[in-house]
Amino acid sequence: MFEPPIQRLVDELARLPGVGQKSAQRLAFHLLNIDEPDARRLADAIIEMRVQIQLCQRCFNVSASDLCTICSDGRREPGLICVVERAQDIVVVERTQEYRGSYHVLGGSISPIAGIGPEQLRFRELLARVEAESINEAIAATNPTVEGDATALYLARLLKPLGVKVSKLASGLPVGGDLDYADEITLGRALIGRQQL
Amino acid sequence: MFEPPIQRLVDELARLPGVGQKSAQRLAFHLLNIDEPDARRLADAIIEMRVQIQLCQRCFNVSASDLCTICSDGRREPGLICVVERAQDIVVVERTQEYRGSYHVLGGSISPIAGIGPEQLRFRELLARVEAESINEAIAATNPTVEGDATALYLARLLKPLGVKVSKLASGLPVGGDLDYADEITLGRALIGRQQL
Repeated sequence: MFEPPIQRLVDELARLPGVGQKSAQRLAFHLLNIDEPDARRLADAIIEMRVQIQLCQRCFNVSASDLCTICSDGRREPGLICVVERAQDIVVVERTQEYRGSYHVLGGSISPIAGIGPEQLRFRELLARVEAESINEAIAATNPTVEGDATALYLARLLKPLGVKVSKLASGLPVGGDLDYADEITLGRALIGRQQL
Repeated sequence: MFEPPIQRLVDELARLPGVGQKSAQRLAFHLLNIDEPDARRLADAIIEMRVQIQLCQRCFNVSASDLCTICSDGRREPGLICVVERAQDIVVVERTQEYRGSYHVLGGSISPIAGIGPEQLRFRELLARVEAESINEAIAATNPTVEGDATALYLARLLKPLGVKVSKLASGLPVGGDLDYADEITLGRALIGRQQL
């Protein structure tokens, strides 16, 4: 329909998550109409990121060097580890400024439907770290989903026998939210986890 | 916040129309997590498009060569020209399979608010074509907006004295739409343009 070089870009853009055929066309023509250096900067940023970013050899966070900025930071609390599904979850936990330990990226969550068991995730690497780094506390910061909860439970079963204290993030009402809008599962968990005043 | 190569890509993605900060982060991590050749294909498609696509020297459509596929097609009806705001509008008109003439891309619409007058658009090039190609009919396929209508009106004032028949696309109810959902301006135009049965 479009000239082949445009159609190829439309096809590539339409592969991106949340980008439909129509948005892909709009984006392609935007990239055609802006100044060439601006379009080139986006292409370069993709390539540069793929060239420069690797996985941290210790925690599997995204990193521009062998060890990520958190693992290279000598002031982080030793013995405490926060286990997340994906690297991008680390930034979210960091933003709270409530956590000072290290991280471990599993690379996903246990999902029998998607055929992902513990052996497809980085539990082996985690076990090695628990031993090598004398970890005594682990926090499962997995998503509040069936898969995330199953992963947290698996983590607890794996680490508790080794004497590691394991917890998971509290479920409850989002701060600033409205009770009216809370679904019954969230509200149920908020009740079970109610805090003494 | 993120490692610099990731943050740079997030920033570039967030410049795209309709892509917010959060979507840009999600897209950047998607491009980090997929296979490297897949990410590289998107970057290459952007560069390739910018290198290969130019403007047709006759109608200013996007083109992989000096003349676009429509201008190179000897079977198109001579003397008839369809004036559009942007190159991407040509594909939309072509899809109707109701038009067999040539096109002319103005490069936008007259908008005093945005500081765009007729001299910023390709009216001069259009006048040259009207003379050189003995154009006797022009259709303004501009957007049904204040700016698009003003542009169509300007086109009519410019070409009518030269003996060119000028029309613009009909405004009215979208086919398959619901009368209930039509805004009053569209419905008003549908009434004014009512067709004898």
